[in-house]
Amino acid sequence: MKLLRVGPAGAERPALLEADESLRDLSGVVDDLDGALLADDEALGRIRAAADSGELPFLDPAGLRIGPPLARIGKIVCIGLNYHDHARETGAEPPTEPVIFFKAADTVVGPNDTVLVPRGSTKTDWEVELAVVIGRTARYLESAEEGLAHVAGYAVAHDVSEREFQIERGGTWDKGKNCETFNPLGPWLVTADEVPDPQKLSLRLWVNGELKQDGTTAEQIFPVGEVVRYVSQFMTLYPGDVINTGTPAGVALGRPEPKPFLRAGDVVELEIEGLGRQRQEFKSA
Amino acid sequence: MKLLRVGPAGAERPALLEADESLRDLSGVVDDLDGALLADDEALGRIRAAADSGELPFLDPAGLRIGPPLARIGKIVCIGLNYHDHARETGAEPPTEPVIFFKAADTVVGPNDTVLVPRGSTKTDWEVELAVVIGRTARYLESAEEGLAHVAGYAVAHDVSEREFQIERGGTWDKGKNCETFNPLGPWLVTADEVPDPQKLSLRLWVNGELKQDGTTAEQIFPVGEVVRYVSQFMTLYPGDVINTGTPAGVALGRPEPKPFLRAGDVVELEIEGLGRQRQEFKSA
Repeated sequence: MKLLRVGPAGAERPALLEADESLRDLSGVVDDLDGALLADDEALGRIRAAADSGELPFLDPAGLRIGPPLARIGKIVCIGLNYHDHARETGAEPPTEPVIFFKAADTVVGPNDTVLVPRGSTKTDWEVELAVVIGRTARYLESAEEGLAHVAGYAVAHDVSEREFQIERGGTWDKGKNCETFNPLGPWLVTADEVPDPQKLSLRLWVNGELKQDGTTAEQIFPVGEVVRYVSQFMTLYPGDVINTGTPAGVALGRPEPKPFLRAGDVVELEIEGLGRQRQEFKSA
Repeated sequence: MKLLRVGPAGAERPALLEADESLRDLSGVVDDLDGALLADDEALGRIRAAADSGELPFLDPAGLRIGPPLARIGKIVCIGLNYHDHARETGAEPPTEPVIFFKAADTVVGPNDTVLVPRGSTKTDWEVELAVVIGRTARYLESAEEGLAHVAGYAVAHDVSEREFQIERGGTWDKGKNCETFNPLGPWLVTADEVPDPQKLSLRLWVNGELKQDGTTAEQIFPVGEVVRYVSQFMTLYPGDVINTGTPAGVALGRPEPKPFLRAGDVVELEIEGLGRQRQEFKSA
């Protein structure tokens, strides 16, 4: 299923995108899409039954904002340098175990919402990423297979990053990853049953219409199931937590000088095979 | 005011500790203590009026669990190496600007709840810290004075840390800071009006009755108002966000070998002047 949330920021309603691309209203079936729902097989079953009935009310998509596909996100764990090609372009050695950093859940916006270039920023960069949404509490998992079994679904994430704040201002990467609006998510949460192999997805990102990233999750150093298993050794993952699983090559940081960092007025589009497409206009904070 | 939440985990009720140490039930006045409440002058005024009336119902503290003093915490921003004496003991240069890392809000437990030593951990360490609770949205603040004006109150935080995970496992510190139960908070949220100078508070921590940390916030490299101002340049702080402002000298990491890291069975107690005292038994995850 392709689950989404539509409407004004903070007042989204749950919806379903049918295979024929019609948009249906789920607000008569569930209150909202969040971690509690993803952990609730009965509620998910009700959504499936309602979808199968063909009787869900239609929503007119014209002019309707799409919000992030998940409310009340817990934490967002991010995996750094998780693509062979991206590690190469940044000059970093491929990590021997996953690199973890965080984005605060309050950085999440809808897939087509405005993204703000922070004040004083000269190095705002793009990163298309496969986001993994946790559906069952994951704690000290023993295998990558178990890891995959705790995934409720997948979405497109834009891990917007300020490289000066991230790398040149001391301390951890978190400083350049948590600016407001820095995590567009969506358009849909695609349930895991519709993504038979998360290691065979193409990811693409364009800036002002020019293709910048053109990768595949086959290049991931640590695949999704292993990432979930690994993270669960250090922290407990809860339903509604998100893991941004890293970005392929092609970011501004990896280009020759002068690096083409983002500025107000730029438009970034990104997509992952089967998971939909985002489009953000960048403005000044 | 000293605000707190008492009762079983996940079902706490709001309460008030009077100057005479009597415990009063606030559940007839407000639903819960969270960021929305801290940003709501009218609701805070109702609590004050109810407290002044002397008519709040008494609660019997016997056998009553104390929870974290804040529900629905947004993000927890942590400042690393923020005490001159702690920077010295870890062998680090004092940072030229604040070091930022994160703890997930799901690591928060009550001040006297059990803390779990992670599986495989041999380097679990203690850190008493002054926690700052944000009461107003803070974005690109211009001065430390403005920073202080956005603080709703203060609490004791225990920034439990696994040093191998933090330092030796690649990537950022976050890996050793986010294990389950790693952020005891409380007992109280003391409103800012009762803490006239947050840079004059003594902090102490004992392990199995032995004094290990004995510091003062006067040693902070970046004082509270400056920390809030600084963080607000990189991310927006919202009501109900927490900043752990760093730990003074005396952690296990700073001791000669063999360093006395924590094990199941240890008991840690910690307190900050005027903000109350915590006591945790450590057990195996």
